[in-house]
Amino acid sequence: MEPIKPYKKGVDYSYTLGEFPTIELLKCRPQAVREVLVHSTFPEKATIDELCGKHKIPVTVADKQIARLSDKENCFVIGVFDKYTEDLKADAPHIVLVNPSNMGNLGTILRTAAAMGIYDIAIIAPGVDSFHPKAVRASMGALFRLRHKYYEDFADYRKEFPDHEVFCFMLTGERQLTVSDVPKPKLFSLVFGNEATGLPAEFANYGQSIIIPQTPDVDSLNLTIAVGIGSYMFTQGIQKDN
Amino acid sequence: MEPIKPYKKGVDYSYTLGEFPTIELLKCRPQAVREVLVHSTFPEKATIDELCGKHKIPVTVADKQIARLSDKENCFVIGVFDKYTEDLKADAPHIVLVNPSNMGNLGTILRTAAAMGIYDIAIIAPGVDSFHPKAVRASMGALFRLRHKYYEDFADYRKEFPDHEVFCFMLTGERQLTVSDVPKPKLFSLVFGNEATGLPAEFANYGQSIIIPQTPDVDSLNLTIAVGIGSYMFTQGIQKDN
Repeated sequence: MEPIKPYKKGVDYSYTLGEFPTIELLKCRPQAVREVLVHSTFPEKATIDELCGKHKIPVTVADKQIARLSDKENCFVIGVFDKYTEDLKADAPHIVLVNPSNMGNLGTILRTAAAMGIYDIAIIAPGVDSFHPKAVRASMGALFRLRHKYYEDFADYRKEFPDHEVFCFMLTGERQLTVSDVPKPKLFSLVFGNEATGLPAEFANYGQSIIIPQTPDVDSLNLTIAVGIGSYMFTQGIQKDN
Repeated sequence: MEPIKPYKKGVDYSYTLGEFPTIELLKCRPQAVREVLVHSTFPEKATIDELCGKHKIPVTVADKQIARLSDKENCFVIGVFDKYTEDLKADAPHIVLVNPSNMGNLGTILRTAAAMGIYDIAIIAPGVDSFHPKAVRASMGALFRLRHKYYEDFADYRKEFPDHEVFCFMLTGERQLTVSDVPKPKLFSLVFGNEATGLPAEFANYGQSIIIPQTPDVDSLNLTIAVGIGSYMFTQGIQKDN
């Protein structure tokens, strides 16, 4: 197999850095995996070998390639996979991220969504590349447990899912999110804006605008925190398995 | 004034990187500020000049020093301040961070705490340096709105604040944190463990152990998200000014 080059936007593959996200990849998306690279000093190959054997995925010892693809010294496993696209589920709750600009944040949000039981994520372009190895690593591989899809604009998303009740998180939100007034919609989209600019004002017309109560001591909550609190509160009615 | 050297643990000063955290510093801790450095191309000096004038703080144009202290190109203002120590308030709610290991996370947590109205933060050593410029920047200057103090161990902290009801956030927590069962203690300490390892098992004996309900699809919530949800839920009874 031809050696994999460091990731660039536009290529049709990406890769996981590290054992944990690689195992998530192998468990959730085995059909997308091209090959797994392991370092010659990696001590615990059993799980990787078993998962790869089951799906006939080649495992290659490739110290030089790992050094070239990884910017951290303690990376011993890399899973190379084909990028994929997938439709969101129409009868499940969604998180909609409008123009997310930070790959670490995107990864943290994906991981939080999976923890809260929201498995469908829409990203309104422009937004950071969900398949970038940095985003995949920040998600700890939660990316592979979710469905996610990019849309040109919010109207395109809305056209596909007209039945979702839309909640836009904004500092100018009309409804305060509190424990004494938890919204309990059957099917919902939680919409969050860009890290620096939030949602454009017109989103107040796209559904109910929501604000998480906060003191005037900070200008706004960190995006990941807002998504954490919002998704926690809206899924309180959903049974968690833990 | 002698030129300031890049930050090292152990020095008795630190500095803010950027206009926003510098203004927070000047507003909340003017007595600690040694001097403010501005870049010759910085266009909006008015607020900085006014705040510094009020407190007789020297403002110096220092392009080379700024380049040396800042690792980002778009830093135009640096506020140099003396490190300080301060006691926590005994009649206010606390967040207790046990061995936090990531400066970005610490900053985000400080900012979230200020947003939720929890202004007293205990850090159980060892933990990252709250005055490191990276932590200050991640907090967006919220550090200066809070009181924070390091303790050798949890017992030391507990001795000083025996009246706080203690809630330890653990994956083995006995009580689920849900909207139908929000704890409403008068005075509380919310205790969170290290990013990688969580709280040691013995913390289950130090107070009520709490778990934020989550699916088995991720191994745990990101520390900052757990603090966000926990502090949001516990302060729901506290009046926010927004």
